[in-house]
Amino acid sequence: MQRRIQTGEAGQPLSRNIRLDIAFDGTPYDGWQVQKNKPTVQGALRDAIFEVTGERVKLHGSGRTDAGVHARRMVANFHTGSRVPAPAFVRALNRLLPPDIRVLASREAGEDFHARLSARSKTYCYRIYRGPILPPHMAREYFHYPYRVDVPLMRQACLMLTGEHDFGSFAKNSGLARHGPTHQAVDRSTIRRILRIDLRQKGHELIFTVEGTGFLHHMVRNIVGTLLELGRGQMTPERFERLIQVRDRTLAGFTAPARGLTLLRVSS
Amino acid sequence: MQRRIQTGEAGQPLSRNIRLDIAFDGTPYDGWQVQKNKPTVQGALRDAIFEVTGERVKLHGSGRTDAGVHARRMVANFHTGSRVPAPAFVRALNRLLPPDIRVLASREAGEDFHARLSARSKTYCYRIYRGPILPPHMAREYFHYPYRVDVPLMRQACLMLTGEHDFGSFAKNSGLARHGPTHQAVDRSTIRRILRIDLRQKGHELIFTVEGTGFLHHMVRNIVGTLLELGRGQMTPERFERLIQVRDRTLAGFTAPARGLTLLRVSS
Repeated sequence: MQRRIQTGEAGQPLSRNIRLDIAFDGTPYDGWQVQKNKPTVQGALRDAIFEVTGERVKLHGSGRTDAGVHARRMVANFHTGSRVPAPAFVRALNRLLPPDIRVLASREAGEDFHARLSARSKTYCYRIYRGPILPPHMAREYFHYPYRVDVPLMRQACLMLTGEHDFGSFAKNSGLARHGPTHQAVDRSTIRRILRIDLRQKGHELIFTVEGTGFLHHMVRNIVGTLLELGRGQMTPERFERLIQVRDRTLAGFTAPARGLTLLRVSS
Repeated sequence: MQRRIQTGEAGQPLSRNIRLDIAFDGTPYDGWQVQKNKPTVQGALRDAIFEVTGERVKLHGSGRTDAGVHARRMVANFHTGSRVPAPAFVRALNRLLPPDIRVLASREAGEDFHARLSARSKTYCYRIYRGPILPPHMAREYFHYPYRVDVPLMRQACLMLTGEHDFGSFAKNSGLARHGPTHQAVDRSTIRRILRIDLRQKGHELIFTVEGTGFLHHMVRNIVGTLLELGRGQMTPERFERLIQVRDRTLAGFTAPARGLTLLRVSS
């Protein structure tokens, strides 16, 4: 049943909390978060919401994605006083958005739903192509890494990463630099829980799927870069084990490029 | 064994005939054929060949593709007097080309090999997405057609199109207008042979695969548009049968958009 908009004592419509499920091809965007004079997914969505509701809303995303990262199903929410029925946002927003951003679903959420704070786990995949030439139709979503890697060894390493660990070694450099190590431990824990990491091989393709309760900035990309160095023999298994025990970004591998990363879903 | 470049009586190197297998994402290009001040696949390749050989070569493609059409494996050839070993063109050209055009293979072909004239059959696929919202990662390669269609009926129609027929009804309008019907019959036959058409259904996806010895301009896209109208009940089976007997473009369905079309391979 369609919930009616309630009005407060002053006749003001109480705001409704609208949840959007969205997908995007991140190639042409400077990530999720609004930045001045740069195309962003949040910016495009906020502009479209403004056209529909006449309101400049605060749009919460389930997390920030970096420039070039894609989403198959991400979650966002905003409060609005507009009378537009919640499911009607799908069609109304998609008419205004470019085809590389789509609203997949729209519904009214409970007053306390918050896309980021309510997210209990996120699942990403990271796709790699190992053939000698990257086919053009894969260029936007695959990282081209034309090297032999030891997949069974990488799978063992995945098992070691599963569970609750201090992933400080896999956090973005600048993040660690900004906050001293003591502050970090207190204010911004680098402990995260990975629920599972799968590594599938399909011809020249190598696909990681990672589900976790939360991720540090660049964490998935740094894990992938590290596992590739391990698989290629550029990192010893001993050094990999130390990485999980000692928080030191300089021990980890390279940051795999954004284009291979896709947020598959957010569970709340 | 690497063939040595032969020299003629005047000491001039005889030209070698180089065959390239190429792939491209056609989205940002105005088709294959060079046009002034427009980005084309042929133009990008010719420029890259010039950088490698210093020659402005005549580059033959196995066929022209329209703006927005993709290729997984197309064939081209050119004659060159350069001493670059044939297989070395793969790496040399790919270094210069944008990632949406790739040279997959390069080898020396016989003197009389001609990418278009030597092509014996071509295979295209046309991809359709019928779900309510087209996912962004499919936006470049799928035609969004969110309607119910009668797939078994469309498969029957595919069988009727198989074999040698006058496909004049499926040729591009302008082509027919330029040449009168008598000229057309004499100068430019509209008879073509379709070796097979498959129609696969996979969830919301509908994928046509068409192999033929040759195709008229827009022929695959017009066949797909016509089959969709038939499947949706906008065209009667009787009218469809007439289409194959009577050459009349006005009887056919709409031209399905370029983005859904991909040249899969060329057999020579």
